[in-house]
Amino acid sequence: MNKNSSNIMALAPNTSNKRETVCIFGTGDFGRALGHKMIQSGYSVVYGSRSTQISNLIPKDAEVLSHAEAAQKADVIIIAIQRQHYNFLTPLAEILHGKVLVDISNNLKLNQYPESNAEYLAQLLPGSRVVKAFNTVSAWALQSGTLDASRQVFVCGDDVDAKQMVMNIVRAVGLTPLDKGTLLAAQEIENYPLQLFPMWKFPIFLSLGLTTFFFFYCLALDVIYTYIYEKNNFSFFIAITIPNQVCPAMALILLALVYLPGIFAAIIQLYRGTKYRRFPDWLDKWMLCRKQLGLIALAFASLHVVFSLVTPMRAFSKWRTSKGIISQALNNKTEPLDHTDAWMSDSYLALGILGFFLFVLLGITSLPSVSNSVNWREFRFVQSKLGYLALIFCTAHTLVYGGKWFLSPSAYKWYLPNIYMLSLVIPCAVLVVKFVLIFPCIDKPLTQIRQGWERNPKHSE
Amino acid sequence: MNKNSSNIMALAPNTSNKRETVCIFGTGDFGRALGHKMIQSGYSVVYGSRSTQISNLIPKDAEVLSHAEAAQKADVIIIAIQRQHYNFLTPLAEILHGKVLVDISNNLKLNQYPESNAEYLAQLLPGSRVVKAFNTVSAWALQSGTLDASRQVFVCGDDVDAKQMVMNIVRAVGLTPLDKGTLLAAQEIENYPLQLFPMWKFPIFLSLGLTTFFFFYCLALDVIYTYIYEKNNFSFFIAITIPNQVCPAMALILLALVYLPGIFAAIIQLYRGTKYRRFPDWLDKWMLCRKQLGLIALAFASLHVVFSLVTPMRAFSKWRTSKGIISQALNNKTEPLDHTDAWMSDSYLALGILGFFLFVLLGITSLPSVSNSVNWREFRFVQSKLGYLALIFCTAHTLVYGGKWFLSPSAYKWYLPNIYMLSLVIPCAVLVVKFVLIFPCIDKPLTQIRQGWERNPKHSE
Amino acid sequence: MNKNSSNIMALAPNTSNKRETVCIFGTGDFGRALGHKMIQSGYSVVYGSRSTQISNLIPKDAEVLSHAEAAQKADVIIIAIQRQHYNFLTPLAEILHGKVLVDISNNLKLNQYPESNAEYLAQLLPGSRVVKAFNTVSAWALQSGTLDASRQVFVCGDDVDAKQMVMNIVRAVGLTPLDKGTLLAAQEIENYPLQLFPMWKFPIFLSLGLTTFFFFYCLALDVIYTYIYEKNNFSFFIAITIPNQVCPAMALILLALVYLPGIFAAIIQLYRGTKYRRFPDWLDKWMLCRKQLGLIALAFASLHVVFSLVTPMRAFSKWRTSKGIISQALNNKTEPLDHTDAWMSDSYLALGILGFFLFVLLGITSLPSVSNSVNWREFRFVQSKLGYLALIFCTAHTLVYGGKWFLSPSAYKWYLPNIYMLSLVIPCAVLVVKFVLIFPCIDKPLTQIRQGWERNPKHSE
Repeated sequence: MNKNSSNIMALAPNTSNKRETVCIFGTGDFGRALGHKMIQSGYSVVYGSRSTQISNLIPKDAEVLSHAEAAQKADVIIIAIQRQHYNFLTPLAEILHGKVLVDISNNLKLNQYPESNAEYLAQLLPGSRVVKAFNTVSAWALQSGTLDASRQVFVCGDDVDAKQMVMNIVRAVGLTPLDKGTLLAAQEIENYPLQLFPMWKFPIFLSLGLTTFFFFYCLALDVIYTYIYEKNNFSFFIAITIPNQVCPAMALILLALVYLPGIFAAIIQLYRGTKYRRFPDWLDKWMLCRKQLGLIALAFASLHVVFSLVTPMRAFSKWRTSKGIISQALNNKTEPLDHTDAWMSDSYLALGILGFFLFVLLGITSLPSVSNSVNWREFRFVQSKLGYLALIFCTAHTLVYGGKWFLSPSAYKWYLPNIYMLSLVIPCAVLVVKFVLIFPCIDKPLTQIRQGWERNPKHSE
Repeated sequence: MNKNSSNIMALAPNTSNKRETVCIFGTGDFGRALGHKMIQSGYSVVYGSRSTQISNLIPKDAEVLSHAEAAQKADVIIIAIQRQHYNFLTPLAEILHGKVLVDISNNLKLNQYPESNAEYLAQLLPGSRVVKAFNTVSAWALQSGTLDASRQVFVCGDDVDAKQMVMNIVRAVGLTPLDKGTLLAAQEIENYPLQLFPMWKFPIFLSLGLTTFFFFYCLALDVIYTYIYEKNNFSFFIAITIPNQVCPAMALILLALVYLPGIFAAIIQLYRGTKYRRFPDWLDKWMLCRKQLGLIALAFASLHVVFSLVTPMRAFSKWRTSKGIISQALNNKTEPLDHTDAWMSDSYLALGILGFFLFVLLGITSLPSVSNSVNWREFRFVQSKLGYLALIFCTAHTLVYGGKWFLSPSAYKWYLPNIYMLSLVIPCAVLVVKFVLIFPCIDKPLTQIRQGWERNPKHSE
Repeated sequence: MNKNSSNIMALAPNTSNKRETVCIFGTGDFGRALGHKMIQSGYSVVYGSRSTQISNLIPKDAEVLSHAEAAQKADVIIIAIQRQHYNFLTPLAEILHGKVLVDISNNLKLNQYPESNAEYLAQLLPGSRVVKAFNTVSAWALQSGTLDASRQVFVCGDDVDAKQMVMNIVRAVGLTPLDKGTLLAAQEIENYPLQLFPMWKFPIFLSLGLTTFFFFYCLALDVIYTYIYEKNNFSFFIAITIPNQVCPAMALILLALVYLPGIFAAIIQLYRGTKYRRFPDWLDKWMLCRKQLGLIALAFASLHVVFSLVTPMRAFSKWRTSKGIISQALNNKTEPLDHTDAWMSDSYLALGILGFFLFVLLGITSLPSVSNSVNWREFRFVQSKLGYLALIFCTAHTLVYGGKWFLSPSAYKWYLPNIYMLSLVIPCAVLVVKFVLIFPCIDKPLTQIRQGWERNPKHSE
């Protein structure tokens, strides 16, 4: 156990670097895993336990004592027990006075208790210095040493020195402490590991719903209609042709939905004549998930690009190409180049490439490390100016590609519009309204309102 | 206003977590926005204002008092007034003694005043503890709660405890404080939000200029020349064919320009025999924007890749392919596979793919979070070794593709060289000189010079 | 030298902002470079040197004194001398008492000495406050001002105030200090700049070995066999065709190797009935380089995608296509669309696209800044659930594409299996065993073991 070849970040390969003693209350899974890791990092670990007989699960080099004895041996005590048992600590209040208590507990539900576990502990033992830490790390990761996920440990507490001591331990076991301020942040820290992509839920469900709808819409029009009326079995369209109609439609609609709430917000502010009243709840929520909507749109756009690029490798398009060429050859004629066609095909491709290029740029700037390295003005420039440019290019790409079908009756199978037309509704609406909003006569009052001016002060709350 | 459903990071959903009182001087837009946010986070806010009558713009739960009264109620006072009005604070010097004053002001121009606003405030009120913070956040973002850009707030100040207090407030309102040291950093922090991609200006203007030149050059040779002498209207080349000649040329030239200043620096150092004299100004500036040049080159290279990959989907190339096949079919013959051709086409494609692959690797390592996780030696290895390898591959790709045209008279329309030849000049020059520089007889003295050795100590300053 | 236009981060463009005096012991390359930079940032620098005559290499504005005199002028002393000369500092112990000594030394080998240089310095001068810093920055980068690599400076030390003083200097010269805790971290910090992608070595050598093997395997079967038995010279397959067989095989095998150690770990834990015994060393090492294996697999997959997409641009495939079409045309017939073929080609393309899409998602979440912004649960969800989904898609892609060859005798040239079959062995094995492991009767005890339960407590150590 002494040789810890697996842990690259082990700071004390030779145990000559003896660190201080740390006490751990509780011999559960996390307490044991943390104890193992701390011993590997050069700490002396003493466990406080109800039964002081040495369990063989506890690290060999650790001592096991009663809670009171163990607490006296160390300045830092890690409370690896569950919140409902915290009240057994109250008799130890005197011994724990002045000690640093590290609350590592997690809850099973978001906001399970009115106050966070760490604040509850601090109320029980007002003389102790409570620090919240380690709750975002999994015992399994600590045990196996394979910390490939985030190495960040959120730390908060009211006592700066106590926090420093705990942050030193965090660093010593190879993790990165992140100071989150006073103990008031404990609630947030305790909620953190319970989340599973909270901001992504609505965008993902919206995309799944829309994708399913569009998929069956295309299936009906392209496969079932063709099968019924033209007796052609194009069931293999399910694999590429239909996804490649759904993906661009989804990408364009979702990209437009990123900019739609900004349009609504501007209209609401213009109507109210003030920015000091809250937006409706749905608009607030929508604005907060714009980044997620944009990234899902980018995923759909990328899929569309790859689906389109593999076209020449499909057996179906090879067959269609050769059928066309053979029929020309058998008729002994070569069709001349159709210049309109060449222009149309080249320009929708070029527009699509440029739109996708700007889209990828937007995606890159939304990476946390990139958006942290630009200031507010630069971020606004990229996300707003380049974003609208991407929307314009992508809408134009779709218009040039699918525009000819608007007037063709054959495009309205079962009197239903083609998916290209459906996907253009929202983007075109956004672009038209945005175009109106940048007229000076409308842009000027809007800018004033956003700088704090009010048309009608009595309206404000 | 109590329910703040939109703010995911709200730390104090229940107002039971009462924090201390903070005073805000000034009821302008930013002062109000910050006050709103702090009340939501559990702080008591008291405004200091000339007129103490409660404006309906000010958050309901905030108190409004005279400056002197407000200042006495809090330890932290946020100075949300403009620099030119700072001198009205001097009469309050006694009340403000020992208080933490948070300077949140911004200027309209870079380096507008000889000293930063925060330092000016500290000079006016030497008894107060001045901290610079919050100036990089926009009032609009604070108000609307949509902080999708950087959450970083730069904080600096001479008093460590005062800085800690301000950093706690920053964290409490859901932002991330970043300690920038003493008040001397205030000037930099005040300049930060005024910048708009300062390092990108020269590379972007250079690329725009070169792109425009190459575009019209290709337009003249490929469209106008063909129209005049061959009576062919290839105007649709503007959309894809010409961009796909300009993009690779730009990518190759800009990539070579990334490595050219290093070549110049080596020659200058060899000539001078010392590294202790500054490079000329233009070389210094050039070296500092190498990363930006490289990223723009990568953007052009990516565009080139996509432009090339869509080729089979273009109406023009479909027409050209079928014309070729039909003419063979009508002549009743099948041409055998030209092995030289197969080798040439496969090897320029393979070289281009490998070059682009290395290029993308370079781009990924220049992401801030990736370059922060490698050490200096690793960064040098990737950027120097892999970078030159990418340059070699890309130059070879162009040489194999366009090399045959060097000797063909038809390539010299209007006696002008083809764009392929133009784009090869700088990369080939860089590679040849670099090849000379790695000769041991030249590399050895250069390495010595870079380790501090001097050929002629009297030359140094 | 006063005008420092090149250094964007210069905090003190006007020297009116005088900072305190800092002493540097040693006038070597790094000492001079650091001195230059500090003078530019507004510090007064005094050098401590054996010979006090002013060398012309030393920055003009710096003073040069004897060690004792120089030390008395400053609170912070930067020790820019080598470890083997540290003992000359012992006579100065009295003067250095209470001073902040900054150890910036590096070693030539990993773990060259039993204790780190900084700890050795602290033992020599127990009265001084030793801080480790600056050793991860290169003198050349400091000198030239082109700090495009990481700006992070790791700082550690036992005295918090001393560390703060040094971190202020680090910030003042335009770098970002990163607190690594107490002086025990010095060993790790000293080893850091000596590493060259330590975690990447095994994955890269493994990939190079496998790639070489597969390359020659394909060369033998596709080029040499064809040349010998079919008298066809397909030597140009070396450029694209063979790489495009090797890359997907490598990508699939390496992706399976990412998930194989997890399978082994589960089996070992099930067999042992406990998680409290260490895995064999090879398994530990393997688990720690899974991220690297996955990223290399992603690189191969990306190459495979691009190699495949350029197919229609190859002279060989153009020739093959036209040969097929012409032979049909000359026979006056058009082959009808083969629906099985259309289904097969479309579905293997679609599976490959989805697999690659998920693979890229995995790659993006492994970027440091992205993985830091998700919690443990989210990271596990992406890496485990989406990872297996990607493996399933990619395996299915290969099966649909290459499956038909399993039964075809012509695929077994020289009685050797095709590369498609070789590449499927490990992925299929991983998927089958994983499928067994998620059966409730096996998953339940495994989950219990991972939560700390033990089947047979006496087995544990």
